[in-house]
Parts: sequence; structure tokens; C-alpha cells
Amino acid sequence: VSNSSEETAISERGQKTHDFFLQVQDEITAALERADGTGRFVTDAWSREGGGGGRTRTLTDGAVFEKGGVNVSAVFGDLSEGFAKELPGSGRRFYASGISLVIHPRSPHVPTVHANFRYLEKGEGEGASAWFGGGSDLTPWILYDEDAIHFHRTWKDVCARHAAADHAHFKKWCDDYFFIPHRGERRGIGGIFFDYLGLDRGDEKPVPNLDDVFRFIEDAARCFVPAYVPIVERRKHQTYTDEERAWQLIRRGRYVEFNLVYDRGTVFGLKTKGRTESILMSLPSPVHWAYDHRPRPGTYEEALVSVLRTPRDWV
Amino acid sequence: VSNSSEETAISERGQKTHDFFLQVQDEITAALERADGTGRFVTDAWSREGGGGGRTRTLTDGAVFEKGGVNVSAVFGDLSEGFAKELPGSGRRFYASGISLVIHPRSPHVPTVHANFRYLEKGEGEGASAWFGGGSDLTPWILYDEDAIHFHRTWKDVCARHAAADHAHFKKWCDDYFFIPHRGERRGIGGIFFDYLGLDRGDEKPVPNLDDVFRFIEDAARCFVPAYVPIVERRKHQTYTDEERAWQLIRRGRYVEFNLVYDRGTVFGLKTKGRTESILMSLPSPVHWAYDHRPRPGTYEEALVSVLRTPRDWV
Repeated sequence: VSNSSEETAISERGQKTHDFFLQVQDEITAALERADGTGRFVTDAWSREGGGGGRTRTLTDGAVFEKGGVNVSAVFGDLSEGFAKELPGSGRRFYASGISLVIHPRSPHVPTVHANFRYLEKGEGEGASAWFGGGSDLTPWILYDEDAIHFHRTWKDVCARHAAADHAHFKKWCDDYFFIPHRGERRGIGGIFFDYLGLDRGDEKPVPNLDDVFRFIEDAARCFVPAYVPIVERRKHQTYTDEERAWQLIRRGRYVEFNLVYDRGTVFGLKTKGRTESILMSLPSPVHWAYDHRPRPGTYEEALVSVLRTPRDWV
Repeated sequence: VSNSSEETAISERGQKTHDFFLQVQDEITAALERADGTGRFVTDAWSREGGGGGRTRTLTDGAVFEKGGVNVSAVFGDLSEGFAKELPGSGRRFYASGISLVIHPRSPHVPTVHANFRYLEKGEGEGASAWFGGGSDLTPWILYDEDAIHFHRTWKDVCARHAAADHAHFKKWCDDYFFIPHRGERRGIGGIFFDYLGLDRGDEKPVPNLDDVFRFIEDAARCFVPAYVPIVERRKHQTYTDEERAWQLIRRGRYVEFNLVYDRGTVFGLKTKGRTESILMSLPSPVHWAYDHRPRPGTYEEALVSVLRTPRDWV
């Protein structure tokens, strides 16, 4: 995207965030390849008709990871009238840079993970707005308390290092966001989720400045590897049964249901002609739907669903 | 539902359509069991909190059918303000009876099929409205022209027998409805789709009376078996390769994408606390998503996708 920055006047912060996301993509894919052992990410560079483009990296059939994608993009242009109204800032002009990843391990002992960090600018001149959003959440199939605690503790710690971040708020936001109403469950056991960080939303809360927010984003994005990889290392050699694998494939169906029915990024992306393959790289494979499947009482199945119905404070 | 018809004043037509849908469910499930040979439908009777209920029949792991569901329901009550505005007729009161089915055969040679026939009443007194909707569409994984022609011919013939039906209109409506914008493809090769039949929509077209429309609906619902089962019989003994099966699982992902992102009935049902298991019985199993999968040029894969991109007039 760097070549087009002159014609389209990408802001200094816009360019800086994109450069950072590209760098952290290198770091994350390298760490995941090391954890996998044999799997390698394949890079797909793409450009967007309306402006900008991205670098999608996907890994298929690794030793540990069955399917995973880490996407970085920087896109700009004009939003549709309808969508422009839904976002802060005057006018339809926008710029968005970000990194988004979903990793689906093969073993039901190793949780699926998602992370996303993004920077947005909307509008021009006096009415222009800019903010950061993002988060990371964990979706185990067999729940290990120590993994859940480690994941949540990592995000709590990084929030504690930055005045711009509010862990309690971000943790609850995450539990609320990933709720699947038609299942009465959350997609996973949460983590953190935040949006409009650095933007004055007129609610009289103190607004952190964008430089401070960016320092938090940098720190948080670099926490993805220490939040997730130790869990992978702890679980990746555990053997699993056909029954545990079958349970994982059923639960993956819920992951698909959330992403296709409720996830704002996915639904918005698909309906506004985003790059379909980069959006749907989040979907697991294989997946299984069974009619009226219920967790077996007194098993790890029921233990997981209970936490998905009533989120826990892990740290 | 028959017991509650006195308290809730279900209309004579409402009761009659529901009785018919129950009867045709018996006929269809019996015919599908015969075609399968060993698979048997399991019946699940359920009631709805707001009023009414249904009879869901599902078949799992038959000799021919991997997963299938045939659901009949008759529900009534008050629509939400928001949704009430989207439907014809004054007020929020509604009654809906219908039959809905999706059958997923195991062999990639045997197409998946969907059919739905429904009767709706909305509003009370002078502003009350009533209409029929429905249709049936075929989703092959490996395209056989003779199957497509047979399926489309059956629906064209039944439309020709009823002044209330307009095959050319219903065929195009079907091609338009099952379009998946983010794929640039249709879910399948179509069939017929119609809505608001018997309702004066103020567009100066002649409005068939509801008795005539119901006669068409009865005839059409009874055409499902002759439209589909001969195709099953013709294909069910053909052997298939691992490669053909893998292609089917990838294509099933598109089926899920359509249903969860665009299908009005599914999305509306999920978001208005319909019975989740009866709504999602439409989802196939297993399903596979691969990053950036493309049909192999010069194969049955490309031949199918070409027809999904540009619908054909089969009869």
C-alpha cells in the first residue's frame, strides 16, 4: 500500500499502524510456524478495487494447526451512504488498517483462537474521527482451567500497563460480543474486546489520546504470542479420542454460526464486497452439524457449555 | 395444534392448511424412507412458547441420505413491532403454517434438495391479509442435465395446471433468491420460488383467490416426491471417488453460507427465537472450508460453477 500513499494522502498514523501490523504479522506467523513444527504459511498479496489491499497468510494441514489465517490489510475509499451513517465522523471517506487472525488446531485439546487489532479513520477536515479497536478471544473444546487463566491473565496484565485500557470493561465487552443468542451460549471463553478507543463519544468518559492508544495496541498485539503459544505447547502432544474429535467438530459448527450470523466484521465484509477468501479464512474445517446435539451430562462437554452459558472471571 | 384452535380462533383455512401439511409430511417421509432403504425418520414434537408448535422429523446416516429434516409447524401470536412492519396486513397478530424440508444425500452424485410451502395470516379485521409462499430448489454437486431437466419440468408442469401459478416468474424468482453475492454464484440450479400468492399487493396484477392458490399448493407439495425421488433412484447406486466427495463437502460450505447469511427464513427464525434445531436442521454434515478453493478447469467442478454463475433455462 506504501506506493499509493502519496496520491491518497494516507495519514502518518495510518501508515505507521499498517507498517506495525505487517511487522507483527511476521512475528506471529513465525511463532506459529515454530509451534507447529512442519506447517508453513503461504502468502497471498491482494489489492482492493476501491483502494488499498492486503497480505493474507494461511496455513493448511500443519502438524498442530489444521487451518489458520493471519491477514493484514490497509484499505481506503468511500463507504456506502448507509454504512457511513453507522460510523462516527462526518462524510463517507475512510481508511482502515488492521491485523486479523483465526487459528484452528486439529487436536480438540488445543483451543481455537482469534485476535484482531485495527485502526480506523473516517470523515474529512473538522468532522474527521479516528480510533482503534480489537481484542482476542479463546475457544476451547475441552476446557482446561490453567489455559483459561493464562490467557485471561496475559490480557489483564497488558491492560494494567496502559491507562488507555480498562480490562474489566474489555473483558465484559468480549463476553457480550461473542454471545450467540439462538444458542444461549458464547462462542468461547472470552478474552478482551474493545472499540472506538481514542474517540470522544460524548459520554463524558476521559478519552485517551491516540498515541497512548497505539502504544497499548502495539503492546497487546505483541501479547498474542505469549497469550496463546504456551497453551499450544502444553496441549499439542496430548492424544485424543474419536469422541473428543467428534465433539470438537460439532462445536466448530457454533463457531461458524456466530461468524456468519452475528460477527459484525464478517457480515459487513461479505455484504460490502470485501475480499471473501480473507474474510472467510476464519471458518474451520472440517465442521459437523447434527440435529439437536446435546452435551453429555457429567462430562467435559457439559463443563464447557456451562462456562459458555455463564462466563467466569478467570483472574 | 388442533386442541388450541378454539381458544385462539385459528381460521378454517389455517387449520385446513396445517392438516394438509401434516398429511403431506407423512407422504414425503414415507417416500424418502423407501428411497433410502434403511434410514428412518425420528419424530420430535415441540411446542412454541408464544403459541403453536411443530412436528420435526429428521433422518441421520441412512443408506442414501446422510442428514435430512422435514418440519411441519403451525405457529401464531404477536410479531415484534419491527417485523410486523415488514409484512403486509395491519397489526401484529399472525398465524403461519408450513412444511419445510432439506435433504442431504451422502453421495455427491445425488443432489441436495429443499422445499417449503407455507400459509400466512397477518393482522385482524378489515386490515387482515393472507397469502401462500413456497418453492423448491435443487443443489447438485455433480451436474447431470437429465436430472436438472426432470426437476425443472416437474415444477413447470404443475404450474401449467394452475392459473394461480406463473412458472417463468417463479423460476426467475428462485434464481434471484438463492444468489450468494459474496460468491457470485447461486446456491444451486434453482426450481421455483414464490411469495405473497393470493394477496393483492396493489400492483394491478390479477390476484388469484386463496382457494385456487391452495389447490396449487396442494398439487405442488405432492409434486415434491415425483420431482426428486426419481433422481435419487437414478443416482444412488453410482460409486464416487474421494475427490468427488471432497468437492461435495467444499460446496456444502456454500450452502451453509447462503443459509446463515442470506436466507430470510433462517436469519429471521434465529433472530426471533424460533426453534433453533428445527431451523438449523437445514445445515449439512460434514462440511469443509478450504482457503481460496477453485474449481478445476475442464472438470465437472467447473461445469457446475458455470451454471451457478449463469442460470440456464432447462425446459
